[in-house]
Amino acid sequence: MLVNGLPSDSVSTLDRGLNYGDGVFRTLLIKQGRVHCWARHYLKLQQDCAALRLDCPSEETLISDIVSLTSSTPNAVAKIVITRGVGQRGYAIQEGFAATRIVSITAPPPFQAQNFTSGIRLHRCFLKLGHQPRLAGIKHLNRLENVLAATECLEEGAPEGLLEDEDGLVISGTRSNLFVIRGGTLYTPDLSQCGVAGIQRERVMDWSKEQGGVCKITPMRFEELLQADEIFMVNSVFGLWPVAEVDGYKRSEHPISWKIQEWLNDEND
Amino acid sequence: MLVNGLPSDSVSTLDRGLNYGDGVFRTLLIKQGRVHCWARHYLKLQQDCAALRLDCPSEETLISDIVSLTSSTPNAVAKIVITRGVGQRGYAIQEGFAATRIVSITAPPPFQAQNFTSGIRLHRCFLKLGHQPRLAGIKHLNRLENVLAATECLEEGAPEGLLEDEDGLVISGTRSNLFVIRGGTLYTPDLSQCGVAGIQRERVMDWSKEQGGVCKITPMRFEELLQADEIFMVNSVFGLWPVAEVDGYKRSEHPISWKIQEWLNDEND
Repeated sequence: MLVNGLPSDSVSTLDRGLNYGDGVFRTLLIKQGRVHCWARHYLKLQQDCAALRLDCPSEETLISDIVSLTSSTPNAVAKIVITRGVGQRGYAIQEGFAATRIVSITAPPPFQAQNFTSGIRLHRCFLKLGHQPRLAGIKHLNRLENVLAATECLEEGAPEGLLEDEDGLVISGTRSNLFVIRGGTLYTPDLSQCGVAGIQRERVMDWSKEQGGVCKITPMRFEELLQADEIFMVNSVFGLWPVAEVDGYKRSEHPISWKIQEWLNDEND
Repeated sequence: MLVNGLPSDSVSTLDRGLNYGDGVFRTLLIKQGRVHCWARHYLKLQQDCAALRLDCPSEETLISDIVSLTSSTPNAVAKIVITRGVGQRGYAIQEGFAATRIVSITAPPPFQAQNFTSGIRLHRCFLKLGHQPRLAGIKHLNRLENVLAATECLEEGAPEGLLEDEDGLVISGTRSNLFVIRGGTLYTPDLSQCGVAGIQRERVMDWSKEQGGVCKITPMRFEELLQADEIFMVNSVFGLWPVAEVDGYKRSEHPISWKIQEWLNDEND
C-alpha cells in the first residue's frame, strides 16, 4: 500500500477523508499487470476530483504507484483513494489543502462462477437512495447508503441488491450499474439525482453505439423492470452479471447480456 | 490525540471511517476541565452508534481519554470520532469489526464577539439537503453536503449558512440547529428527513418546557422564516448566535435569544 507514493498503511486522523468523507475513489481490475480500462478510469477520476474541487494526481504519478505495487502481483484489484488531505477544523474547503493519495492492491475476490453464467438473485433493498444532484454520479467517500444497502444483501444472502430512489425509481445496484434489455433496446437509469456513474456503464453504452443502436437513459419503475427481457449489472471488478431473479422476475437465458459480458472483458479499451 | 486510548495521530488506510464515512462523531466544549453537557453528549453518541450498529465505547473509556488529554488544557474543544474500524473489502457490515475510537483536542476557535451579541448574517445556501430518513438526525461521517454548504459561506464571508432541503423546507445551519421565535412561541424544523439533531437543540426545547411553554417541531418555509420575531442558531461549540440578517430579514434586538444564550452557557446540565 502506498500513501502519497511512500509505503505506509496509515493516514492522519485529521484527514478530511476520514472526518467528512471528503474525497473520491476508484476500484481497478489489474489483468496480467495492466489496468483494465485505465484511460476511462483516469478520466472519470479527473471529473470526480473536479466536481469536488480536489487536486487530481497526474496520470504518471498514479501509474507509477500502481506499477510498483503490481510488479509481483499481476492479477489484482487496485483501489485509488484521493482525499482533500489534512485540514484545519471546519467543513469549508480552504486554500492550501494538499490531497492525500492512497493506492492499494488486494487479491481478486473469489466470485461464484454461476454469477457470470446463470446470473444472480438481486435483493430489492429497503433502503431508498436520497437525491443530491450536486453529488450524484460521483464516486465519493460518503457511502453510508451503500453500507446499509449492502448489509441488507449480506443478510439476505444475495450477491447484489437493487437500489431505488426516494421517488421509487430504479437507480442501480449497491456497487454496480444496471441495464435492462427490452424488445432489443437497451435502457439504463438516469443518475442525475443519485447513484454512481461507473465506467462500465459508459462502456455498455458505447457497445450499443457500436452495434448501431442507442442506449436510452430513462426513468424506470420497478414494475417496468419486471417486463424486461434481460437485466444485467456491471462494475469494474466483476464485469457483468446477468440477473436471474428479482422478486417476481425470473430468467434463465441471457443471450444479449452474455454477448456484452464478453465484449466488456476484452481489452478493447 | 489518542487512537484507541494510545497516543497516535494516524489510523489505518483500511479504516471504514476513511473509505465509506462509516462512523459518527461529537464535538465537545471543555470548560475549566469539564465537558459541557457530557451526559447528553454520551447519550446521543450511544443513540447514533446504535442507529448505525456501531459498538459504542463505554462512558468510562471516553472520559479517561478526555481527562488525559485535557489535564494541561482545561479550556478546549474535544472531538470524538467512532468508526467501524478496519474492515474486509466491501460495503457490508460484517461480524468482527472492532470500532476505532479517536479523541482529540484543539484550542477553542476565536469567534467574533459580535456574533454572540448583535448576531450573525446567515448565507442562504444554494446547496439543498437531500432526504435520507435512515441517516437523518445522526451525526455521521458522511458530511460532503456540509462541506459544500460551508464552502459557500466562506466564499460569501458569512459565519454560518441556512440549509433548506430538496422540498424547500428550512432545516438547519451548516453546523448548527435553527430556532425561530414568533409571537412568543418557539419553533424548530423537523429533522426526520435530513439534518443533524444536536444536543443544544434538545436543551433549547427543555428550556422552553422549563418556562411552561412548548417548542413546536414543524415544517418551515423560508418565507415564514422572514416573519420571525427572532431567529437563532445553536451548537455545542459556540452556544447560541442570534441571526441579525438573512436575505430580506433584519433584526438588531434579540431579547429572548440572549436569555436562552445565557441559560445554555450555564452549567445547568
